[in-house]
Amino acid sequence: MSFTIGKIRGLQQITTSAGAFTICAMDHRGSLQNLLEKEWGRKIEFQEMVEFKMELCAVMSPYASAILLDPIYGAAPGIARGVLPGNIGLLVSVEATGYEASSAGRITKLLEGWSVEKVKRMGGSAVKILVYYRSDLPDIAKQQLKTIDEVASDCIKHDLPFLVEPVAYPVKGEKADSAEFAERKPVLVIETARQITELPIDVLKSEFPADLRYEKDEGKMFDYCSELNDVSKVPWVVLSAGVDYETFRQQVKIACKAGSSGFLGGRAIWQELVKFKDRGARTNFLRTTVVDRFKELADINSAFATPWFSKLGLKKNELAVLNENWYTNY
Amino acid sequence: MSFTIGKIRGLQQITTSAGAFTICAMDHRGSLQNLLEKEWGRKIEFQEMVEFKMELCAVMSPYASAILLDPIYGAAPGIARGVLPGNIGLLVSVEATGYEASSAGRITKLLEGWSVEKVKRMGGSAVKILVYYRSDLPDIAKQQLKTIDEVASDCIKHDLPFLVEPVAYPVKGEKADSAEFAERKPVLVIETARQITELPIDVLKSEFPADLRYEKDEGKMFDYCSELNDVSKVPWVVLSAGVDYETFRQQVKIACKAGSSGFLGGRAIWQELVKFKDRGARTNFLRTTVVDRFKELADINSAFATPWFSKLGLKKNELAVLNENWYTNY
Repeated sequence: MSFTIGKIRGLQQITTSAGAFTICAMDHRGSLQNLLEKEWGRKIEFQEMVEFKMELCAVMSPYASAILLDPIYGAAPGIARGVLPGNIGLLVSVEATGYEASSAGRITKLLEGWSVEKVKRMGGSAVKILVYYRSDLPDIAKQQLKTIDEVASDCIKHDLPFLVEPVAYPVKGEKADSAEFAERKPVLVIETARQITELPIDVLKSEFPADLRYEKDEGKMFDYCSELNDVSKVPWVVLSAGVDYETFRQQVKIACKAGSSGFLGGRAIWQELVKFKDRGARTNFLRTTVVDRFKELADINSAFATPWFSKLGLKKNELAVLNENWYTNY
Repeated sequence: MSFTIGKIRGLQQITTSAGAFTICAMDHRGSLQNLLEKEWGRKIEFQEMVEFKMELCAVMSPYASAILLDPIYGAAPGIARGVLPGNIGLLVSVEATGYEASSAGRITKLLEGWSVEKVKRMGGSAVKILVYYRSDLPDIAKQQLKTIDEVASDCIKHDLPFLVEPVAYPVKGEKADSAEFAERKPVLVIETARQITELPIDVLKSEFPADLRYEKDEGKMFDYCSELNDVSKVPWVVLSAGVDYETFRQQVKIACKAGSSGFLGGRAIWQELVKFKDRGARTNFLRTTVVDRFKELADINSAFATPWFSKLGLKKNELAVLNENWYTNY
């Protein structure tokens, strides 16, 4: 396996020097706005979303290998306001918020007016897409794979790393919180990893392959993660979704021990912030609890994460083979 | 003045958090090969050039805000071998080594098979061009300005910062080492700065506007630098050419006090390395003397350099004005 130079540079920019993904996600749009509106009991304006993210980005950047931002409220202000330092990697999402419901399931749309080319042009280090995905529904899965494949082609063209975040969802007759859906989770997540990483993508941002509200056996969780690691052709990281922090910490540790290359965590790390209407109290919680959590997760990465290049059978100092004519052939 | 987001991100990547250029140049090709062949008394092969640069890059990166590499021996191996960390900026040169001699003067050519687009694709943070330039020879200057302008357009297209390094040279009847040429130096360098920064470039990599073998008056040197600072429409940094380290240190200090945003230094910092045929002795000199020099220059930057955004009248946290539709209009 040999990587292209732009993808290597992008991966180096979003990982630690040891090759782990220690990334704070704050690319939320609809979900964050809903949370804030519910807690604050009023409409949340554009500029308030920007300010919320800018404070989060400013405080977390020094501890993160990279920050995941959205193109509307986050990425450009992060740069223009000097809140995202130049030495921290920048991931930018390309999907439209939410999804289109069809009889067959959820369909992901790309954000109109936005593109991989723009992520590259603005100095982004990598591209991320969230796709709702049911590995057991081949028709809708096929449509989603087609979208991923198109974005993957653009990422190859611009030589940018591509991270894919598939998220399972309940279809009719199922309930997300039920024991039945929890029981299906490992198979859904693992089969998804197998299907998605057949495509020319670079990193899988995976759900944890078990619902910890029902699954209490750490040995089983480890086995699921090992299976996920076996089927994934690319390095993978754990996403946090909305689980509580203690659960996420447990998931990251188990996943890393089973072969994961780190985490890309959002709400599990900072979601209580939305409860503080008072700016001072919010800042205080951010600078203490949220920072401490992130540092703890970074320590787990340092101890247990598999470097992205090792997962690919590469050495840190031998990531690509080059000859004298590299620059003309590139 | 308002910057585009890609240019801002690139400038943030190649500067310190305070906004200073603390950059180690090692993009030398012909000049370095000649030096090595002269000192080692034999032909120097491609791979030896690569190894020389890789060691230099590995040792200097932790102290630099960015590294300037060439596309043949340096940039791609630096990435592929993990020698250039992801959190250090990467500048890549686009000119062919040397120049084409014409009756009117020296003409710069771009490296065939290489381009701004490739610098962007590989994850470079900024583009650099060296041009031989005589501000008092309008015909040849016009040709050189045209080349710079073309590269500037490509950099705007790919939203990459563009650094231009004009270097004065003796024409017929002149001698580079003479008192006469030294006397013309301030005017040549200052007028060059005025002419070059009329173009849409982002940073001027300038010669020091005096020859210290002849000019001993620090007050005069400061005045020349202040004049250069006044005529330059963009942030500027001092290049080192082949002067000895003590001279370069003096130049950087005076230039920074007069408004420069730092330095982009090469041979003055590391040129004695070529004298060591023995790898162990060379490594030792690199890890001690060369590193100490660079740290000393970085300290001068910390104390005296003008942040690039300040030179442009911008604030670190207000580098561009964005509206809600930024992502669609970009």
